[in-house]
Amino acid sequence: MAKRIAMGEPADLSASEALELMSEGALSAQALTEACLDRIEAVDPQIHAWAQTDRRRAVFEARARDRRRADGLPLSAMHGIPVGLKDIIDVQGFATGNGIPRDADNRPTEDASIVRRLRDAGAVIVGKTVTTELAYFHPGATRNPHDPERTPGGSSSGSAAAVAAGMVPFAVGTQTNGSVIRPASFCGVVGYKPSYGTVPRTGILRAAPSLDQVGFFARRVEDVALAGELMGPDDRDPDYRLNPGPLLTTTLSEPPLAPDLAMVETPFWDRTDADTRDGFAELLEVLGVHGTAAELPEVFGRGAGWLATVMAAEMARNLGHYADADPVSAAFQALVEQGRSIHAVDYLAARDMQAIMRDSLEPLFERFDAILTPAAPGEAPRDLNSTGDPIFSTLWTFCGLPAVTLPLLAGENGLPIGVQLIGPYGQDAKLLRTARWLTRLCASKVEESG
Amino acid sequence: MAKRIAMGEPADLSASEALELMSEGALSAQALTEACLDRIEAVDPQIHAWAQTDRRRAVFEARARDRRRADGLPLSAMHGIPVGLKDIIDVQGFATGNGIPRDADNRPTEDASIVRRLRDAGAVIVGKTVTTELAYFHPGATRNPHDPERTPGGSSSGSAAAVAAGMVPFAVGTQTNGSVIRPASFCGVVGYKPSYGTVPRTGILRAAPSLDQVGFFARRVEDVALAGELMGPDDRDPDYRLNPGPLLTTTLSEPPLAPDLAMVETPFWDRTDADTRDGFAELLEVLGVHGTAAELPEVFGRGAGWLATVMAAEMARNLGHYADADPVSAAFQALVEQGRSIHAVDYLAARDMQAIMRDSLEPLFERFDAILTPAAPGEAPRDLNSTGDPIFSTLWTFCGLPAVTLPLLAGENGLPIGVQLIGPYGQDAKLLRTARWLTRLCASKVEESG
Repeated sequence: MAKRIAMGEPADLSASEALELMSEGALSAQALTEACLDRIEAVDPQIHAWAQTDRRRAVFEARARDRRRADGLPLSAMHGIPVGLKDIIDVQGFATGNGIPRDADNRPTEDASIVRRLRDAGAVIVGKTVTTELAYFHPGATRNPHDPERTPGGSSSGSAAAVAAGMVPFAVGTQTNGSVIRPASFCGVVGYKPSYGTVPRTGILRAAPSLDQVGFFARRVEDVALAGELMGPDDRDPDYRLNPGPLLTTTLSEPPLAPDLAMVETPFWDRTDADTRDGFAELLEVLGVHGTAAELPEVFGRGAGWLATVMAAEMARNLGHYADADPVSAAFQALVEQGRSIHAVDYLAARDMQAIMRDSLEPLFERFDAILTPAAPGEAPRDLNSTGDPIFSTLWTFCGLPAVTLPLLAGENGLPIGVQLIGPYGQDAKLLRTARWLTRLCASKVEESG
Repeated sequence: MAKRIAMGEPADLSASEALELMSEGALSAQALTEACLDRIEAVDPQIHAWAQTDRRRAVFEARARDRRRADGLPLSAMHGIPVGLKDIIDVQGFATGNGIPRDADNRPTEDASIVRRLRDAGAVIVGKTVTTELAYFHPGATRNPHDPERTPGGSSSGSAAAVAAGMVPFAVGTQTNGSVIRPASFCGVVGYKPSYGTVPRTGILRAAPSLDQVGFFARRVEDVALAGELMGPDDRDPDYRLNPGPLLTTTLSEPPLAPDLAMVETPFWDRTDADTRDGFAELLEVLGVHGTAAELPEVFGRGAGWLATVMAAEMARNLGHYADADPVSAAFQALVEQGRSIHAVDYLAARDMQAIMRDSLEPLFERFDAILTPAAPGEAPRDLNSTGDPIFSTLWTFCGLPAVTLPLLAGENGLPIGVQLIGPYGQDAKLLRTARWLTRLCASKVEESG
């Protein structure tokens, strides 16, 4: 099971624990924010999770939150929670660095839509977290908090590492292929990527809009449910979709139901490490009648290729100018060249498969509450020139389905391996409820065996 | 001014006149439907507006409507109105012929979404109207009711001609470039293409989904406002957009306001005939302070090229298989070949311009209520091998803006020339109110001069 980096300090509290202590008057937003900033000063020189922080401003914001609480004014769901934002998300007062030298002085004139929502919800913005180059594969400086010789995953590298190392209890990333679920798995935190379109993307680097999805990192399922505050209409994001489901936090507070999970190996099972396979075999035993091996529809066999087509074409369109004007990595250069060679009819054929694949899961989701599968092939690779393999996210990102990863397994080197749950489109609340159920089930089994 | 083909018979009533008579008990749905069917029998052998009709079924439906009225049950807004549907729209019991021999026996298993809505609104389905080959340029058999040697326009040729010739008071077409507004102009009827996405397209031939829009033909502005009944959610059309505006019929019943119109020549003014230019000069005089010459943003100069890129790529994707397997026209073959040569990055760049062009009109729509421009370059061309030039619809279709054409002008041969009004996105109700105002203004001037 994933370990905490350290214990007993405010910086190690989960967001929901911190919210409870603040509501009891046992913790102030300022103390929590300063604890996070102190942790950053202490450990980030080794981890490099942050592209930029602003202590003065964060403390100023935290004090304002404390005053508001002291004045007895109404408070929103994230009141006083320090957060980090992937450095492709516009935050006024910070550059949007996008992981590329050209944008080091790229100063946004307004907050991204999600940043406005975070502020409205009461969050305290600590700074910008390291992204890979243009949110693609070429790594940034971040190290895995569990082992500095290992990748934290990407592209939301800094957000995952910052939460794992106790530098913030909540961080925002994005996922175009596997950029939330994979780093969450490698860093041993909870990662949650909501249903496509439900979190608006205005003010976030436009990479591949048919795939770009916002996601969240935290230490508990209850914490990522705070993401419900960040959903909602934005008429500047043409792909925004109303999530008609119930409120995440409301559903989580309901009595737990015992769900049925479909254990799916995916067409990529041969890429998993032995300890992942062993871990899932154990997990199936623990699940008993609640876990059943199931097969994906045949069309999923080609899904990874379709995502690659859509991603390359759209990134070449939206980010190709970087490759023309700047020194970029060979990986990014190759992506742009590949994207530019794709014909519109092939691109459109691949786009059509998103809905077809999603719809093909209907029979499976009639029988099962969620799909259960690894979040990554195994532990974080011992390689700082790569960010690891996103393949266990690819199919679900392509279909736009909600996904959550839970740090429930450990590999042979003691590093975390994430257990991923995927739900039907729009049923995010039920998915998080299932995730909490699974977390508790595994905790109870550990207690029994301990 | 456009003339009615004939007068004094039920088949020549506008939909709103017929609705009024039916509510007064002075006309039955059966009598109206039979009058329409009789008119079809009498004149359609010359006009060829219909691909298929079903007298028995239509009369059966009309009788059911009459019974419902007699029973005092609640009635919807189109109760008892006979309608025709372009033969690319699925109607159970008819083939969806798509204007191509291969589909002569293509029997749909369910009604298109809009057909279900028409039935729910009380309409009586008379049959399927002729479309050009796959809703593109190659003409069907339909002749212009004003002159059988002239084109009725396309691709909704039969729907426009059927309304013009008194064969139905209301018909449905589609517009991917200029397929509603142009035939309405050529045939001398009111044509209305709502804001993109507000009328769901499930069960309609998918040609170029980023452009495909449903539209309506009738004899009065009040009649096309019945289209409001046909808007509304459909989760099988991913491009469906809620129209947040007021109800069309409600707004039309408000007291008329005097609007400000922006007379726009468009980059295609040199394609207009002399009588169109003269007509618009007269119209500006009639408008007085309500009409002002205005310029489009520069970006509109390239809009036609971007529409062509999007249309060719998407039609090649969705309909290219027809060109591979069937004898198709040279025009369609060329479209598919061109579409297949387009690169995804160029397609995506063109797609991005839809929102950019639409947004660039904001300053103009802050000052003006609607844009005023021709619906077509002039009278229907005397050429049955073509369907005329759609260029005066192209820019507005590309931007997805609501457009209406009014048969207010006549050319040197006495054929109608449409006056087109275009409104801001989603403000369809206000656009129709402006259209009725303009219709009444012109009628009052004719009375004065007469």
